[in-house]
Amino acid sequence: METIPRITRKGEQTRAAILDVALSLAGRDGLEGLTIGLLADRLNMSKSGVFAHFGSREELQIAVLKLYRLQLEQEVIKPSMKEASGLPRLYAMFERWARLMTPENPIGCICISGATEYDDRSGPLRDALAAMVRSWQEILVRCVEESIEAGQLRAATDPQQVVFEIYGLILALHHDARFVRRPGSVDRAQAAFYRMIDSYRNPLARAGIQRVVKAANKTIKKTV
Amino acid sequence: METIPRITRKGEQTRAAILDVALSLAGRDGLEGLTIGLLADRLNMSKSGVFAHFGSREELQIAVLKLYRLQLEQEVIKPSMKEASGLPRLYAMFERWARLMTPENPIGCICISGATEYDDRSGPLRDALAAMVRSWQEILVRCVEESIEAGQLRAATDPQQVVFEIYGLILALHHDARFVRRPGSVDRAQAAFYRMIDSYRNPLARAGIQRVVKAANKTIKKTV
Repeated sequence: METIPRITRKGEQTRAAILDVALSLAGRDGLEGLTIGLLADRLNMSKSGVFAHFGSREELQIAVLKLYRLQLEQEVIKPSMKEASGLPRLYAMFERWARLMTPENPIGCICISGATEYDDRSGPLRDALAAMVRSWQEILVRCVEESIEAGQLRAATDPQQVVFEIYGLILALHHDARFVRRPGSVDRAQAAFYRMIDSYRNPLARAGIQRVVKAANKTIKKTV
Repeated sequence: METIPRITRKGEQTRAAILDVALSLAGRDGLEGLTIGLLADRLNMSKSGVFAHFGSREELQIAVLKLYRLQLEQEVIKPSMKEASGLPRLYAMFERWARLMTPENPIGCICISGATEYDDRSGPLRDALAAMVRSWQEILVRCVEESIEAGQLRAATDPQQVVFEIYGLILALHHDARFVRRPGSVDRAQAAFYRMIDSYRNPLARAGIQRVVKAANKTIKKTV
């Protein structure tokens, strides 16, 4: 990085500092609540100073979204990928994701607030947000598929259905913990998650004969 | 109503007309997106004309919230109360509520969008919204309690946990149907609901011996 001129490096630092504050503002007021004016005020900068780093408000909003995606990657996806594929990885994804929803985390999930902000709108911001949500749902679907392939969940399990139900638990947690401010919501979400996954479990896998089940599933797949 | 002077009656009609438009705007842009200016523009009225009916923007927002609560009462709660108490009533509440979440309904749920708008705020509007959500959750909790008392659900069922999970399914439905715009979300929510309720069902009740179970539950309650 030594080859980057000092002025560019400083520009990047300022841009990163603006984005950090923008993310926390968007976490509080939603992406739509994010204005250049509010941001300039918070950072003790001029509006044109903020504008110099982002061509438009929309560009700023999309940059905030990308930063949030990076945080999800670093705090949830990457560490969970270190777990064995199948249920251990799915459990890790859920537990780390759930932890981000608690009121102890000052930034609410901007994807959850964004979903209700942009559900009746169209445009690049809605598209970027929806693409991000879909790609995250696909990662979870893959975890469920791997749990089926490993014989941990029943062969007849519908991965999209499981992810729909997981999403519901995270949304209920976000709602009850942050809005209704009901204590114990994380425990409720986790209890519901384990119960739900258990209801999809392959009864044979519990007896510790995963390999047999895995082979059987493959045979079923071939014959179907 | 003949005794009400004509001028008051006309005032009430105008107020009701303003509220109707305000509710549809709040359904699209959220309660925070609701401004007197936008409303006046939509109604071809002056700002002061709108103000004359509502002392402040906050008063207007709370009136919109009350109107939404009335619609929930008329479209979900009242007709469901006609069903037998216990599971038939709980099923009716869920099915009618779920129907309101689909994109075919032009107004999204302002309680769901409001939850992410006001989770990090305080004030009368947040309090009114949270009180409304809590009172609706209590009605659902009562339905679950009655299902337990009737011996349809296990005595050990935690009604708050069931309502947490029901809420999750409705939130997931609202999210996937309206934001991700994935078809089949209503079917997913209903399938998950029936599965979830089945997992809490009293196995004895299925054999048609509800009365015995009901008596047994009462005994358990007395001895605990």
